[in-house]
Amino acid sequence: MALVPPIEYDAASPAVRAVYDDIMATRKVPAVNNFWKVLAHDPVQLAGVWAQVKAVMGDGALDPLVKEMIYVAVSATNNCEYCIHSHTAAASKKGMTPAMFHELMAVVALANATNRLANGYRIDVDPQFRNPLG
Amino acid sequence: MALVPPIEYDAASPAVRAVYDDIMATRKVPAVNNFWKVLAHDPVQLAGVWAQVKAVMGDGALDPLVKEMIYVAVSATNNCEYCIHSHTAAASKKGMTPAMFHELMAVVALANATNRLANGYRIDVDPQFRNPLG
Amino acid sequence: MALVPPIEYDAASPAVRAVYDDIMATRKVPAVNNFWKVLAHDPVQLAGVWAQVKAVMGDGALDPLVKEMIYVAVSATNNCEYCIHSHTAAASKKGMTPAMFHELMAVVALANATNRLANGYRIDVDPQFRNPLG
Amino acid sequence: MALVPPIEYDAASPAVRAVYDDIMATRKVPAVNNFWKVLAHDPVQLAGVWAQVKAVMGDGALDPLVKEMIYVAVSATNNCEYCIHSHTAAASKKGMTPAMFHELMAVVALANATNRLANGYRIDVDPQFRNPLG
Amino acid sequence: MALVPPIEYDAASPAVRAVYDDIMATRKVPAVNNFWKVLAHDPVQLAGVWAQVKAVMGDGALDPLVKEMIYVAVSATNNCEYCIHSHTAAASKKGMTPAMFHELMAVVALANATNRLANGYRIDVDPQFRNPLG
Amino acid sequence: MALVPPIEYDAASPAVRAVYDDIMATRKVPAVNNFWKVLAHDPVQLAGVWAQVKAVMGDGALDPLVKEMIYVAVSATNNCEYCIHSHTAAASKKGMTPAMFHELMAVVALANATNRLANGYRIDVDPQFRNPLG
Repeated sequence: MALVPPIEYDAASPAVRAVYDDIMATRKVPAVNNFWKVLAHDPVQLAGVWAQVKAVMGDGALDPLVKEMIYVAVSATNNCEYCIHSHTAAASKKGMTPAMFHELMAVVALANATNRLANGYRIDVDPQFRNPLG
Repeated sequence: MALVPPIEYDAASPAVRAVYDDIMATRKVPAVNNFWKVLAHDPVQLAGVWAQVKAVMGDGALDPLVKEMIYVAVSATNNCEYCIHSHTAAASKKGMTPAMFHELMAVVALANATNRLANGYRIDVDPQFRNPLG
Repeated sequence: MALVPPIEYDAASPAVRAVYDDIMATRKVPAVNNFWKVLAHDPVQLAGVWAQVKAVMGDGALDPLVKEMIYVAVSATNNCEYCIHSHTAAASKKGMTPAMFHELMAVVALANATNRLANGYRIDVDPQFRNPLG
Repeated sequence: MALVPPIEYDAASPAVRAVYDDIMATRKVPAVNNFWKVLAHDPVQLAGVWAQVKAVMGDGALDPLVKEMIYVAVSATNNCEYCIHSHTAAASKKGMTPAMFHELMAVVALANATNRLANGYRIDVDPQFRNPLG
Repeated sequence: MALVPPIEYDAASPAVRAVYDDIMATRKVPAVNNFWKVLAHDPVQLAGVWAQVKAVMGDGALDPLVKEMIYVAVSATNNCEYCIHSHTAAASKKGMTPAMFHELMAVVALANATNRLANGYRIDVDPQFRNPLG
Repeated sequence: MALVPPIEYDAASPAVRAVYDDIMATRKVPAVNNFWKVLAHDPVQLAGVWAQVKAVMGDGALDPLVKEMIYVAVSATNNCEYCIHSHTAAASKKGMTPAMFHELMAVVALANATNRLANGYRIDVDPQFRNPLG
């Protein structure tokens, strides 16, 4: 049960439409999804979150597909139904096969398990891991 | 403050040594890290967790480096200090550069933010995302 | 799918009715909501949780509206649908406007993001923050 | 154990210094704290997160002190030591007394408890809460 | 909205059927539940998770009923609807009464509250708790 | 780094001492631990939390040892170092052996893993689990 209704393009203010236009152009899609239509109730936040998504999720040192899979991993850990669906769809569009998705879920499950073993036993970090970026 | 001390190789039972040996051979490392030395207090669990790690984290549909980065993403979301250090080290060893790590952190932060926006506003899943694996 | 049905006033024991009566009198509402009707299966817990809610959520050093907004922030972070709905309603009743709600969501999203950056990078607490209450 | 060292002003690039300068001017402080000095390893992320913090945490429909307290509530829920310290310090500077902090902690504890009761019992949202923003 | 359909016995591969058979024989049930039918899309993961469940949840130092209740406690904390339902059913079958379930929920709520008080105030571990296993 | 110092018995107000006295008498211990000494900064909260702990953690439908183990399971899931140490100590005092603790950790790890598989795949609850308490 959404707390506020999505704001459709026709009902949007010029500032909101400008963000919608940029999302559609950047992603080459004919419409924006509900996430943005709900954030549109707060145009400043809409613009700010979109700026971050655009800056973070595009090309860079990591492949965009890898980024979408990381997004799914976090969303499954946090139990965000909307995000699991939307970012799994985005990852699929970028080339994630079902086999890749299943492995992703397996890593997420394993990491959630061992995170609790390490935290529960309060295991000391080994000296060789203290500067893990070298 | 670890709840139990690590069990070193020399003090380990034959069953535990067999797992240690397999970890060292599989990973081509001269010793196992504290995570395994602590799990060794429960040899059945040690063998079971290692079997899962070996099955899940090796080659497959996803690149092992991608899997390590997903592991880091989950561990940062869950605040597991041990796992952040150990899997960041593993990812670095497999080729993750600092620039890749920074992008990984940026995706993790963004996903944790938008997960709460989608959950907080209770946003409805769009029809086109309902079967996201196609 | 609720695990147990709500216990309506007419079907409640005298001990449960006494708590329901106090909730209705304190909040000036004609009926209690499902949360209490479900807890009523455990009358001791019902009385204990209500005692805590009554003690914590009333007037004090913080404004009751601020407390309701903090409640919503925690509930969005934890993904509690029931609590998001009920405490957003309570906050609205106490004066929270939609604009205030949108800013609340924006803070929740930002905090969830930067929490992971600080935890993920394991950032050291600056000396000036060590005694933050002065 | 921080994964990367903070980047001090003298060692920072012009782009990073520009963000540091804006943080110091906006907050009227003589130096930036470790959070920013660590993010500075990724200048794009540094600028993006600062833009969001500046947009979200300033004056608006909610009082800046209320926003800092919401930040602390989320950080305590997520167990972010750095954020608890830094945002408690920020809230104190804006007028939060110890008594207000104690009430904040009490609300956070209560919300975390009742979130699990509502989620654990899978309690149905009452009809009157379905459109909680009115 | 499940991301993949369950794989029924008749449509399953021999490897998947072997796991289904072992689950049914071990649990003395005439069919496997959806969790396994969904994992069956990844036969290696299906076998691995079942091996862990079989090893961990059976007889041992802890009573199987106690293990099921711990499972419910974790699932309520993490807000896993499927797991709350399936493991509450399993615990009931093993002898958990409604009164026991209510106490379980009360402990879960209390622990989630005090976890945040201890983490939020950053309380130092007392010397007598440093080696809690003696 | 605790945000406030513990309040020792000699420095406590009569209201705080009354709670300390009841804790010591109920638990048959010569002093209260840091958790209570920190909560004592908010005497109303101290009394309220203690009342809940006393009501919930004592004898009832569940064995007090089982309740302590559930507490440890939640605390490991939430990564509360203080609570892991203090409730593991309490469980040990009530009869939990190291072997029982290791099994407890194994169940916690498994539940955290399968919670994410069920949430990540969005698995539908089977009809036979819909009324899990019978």
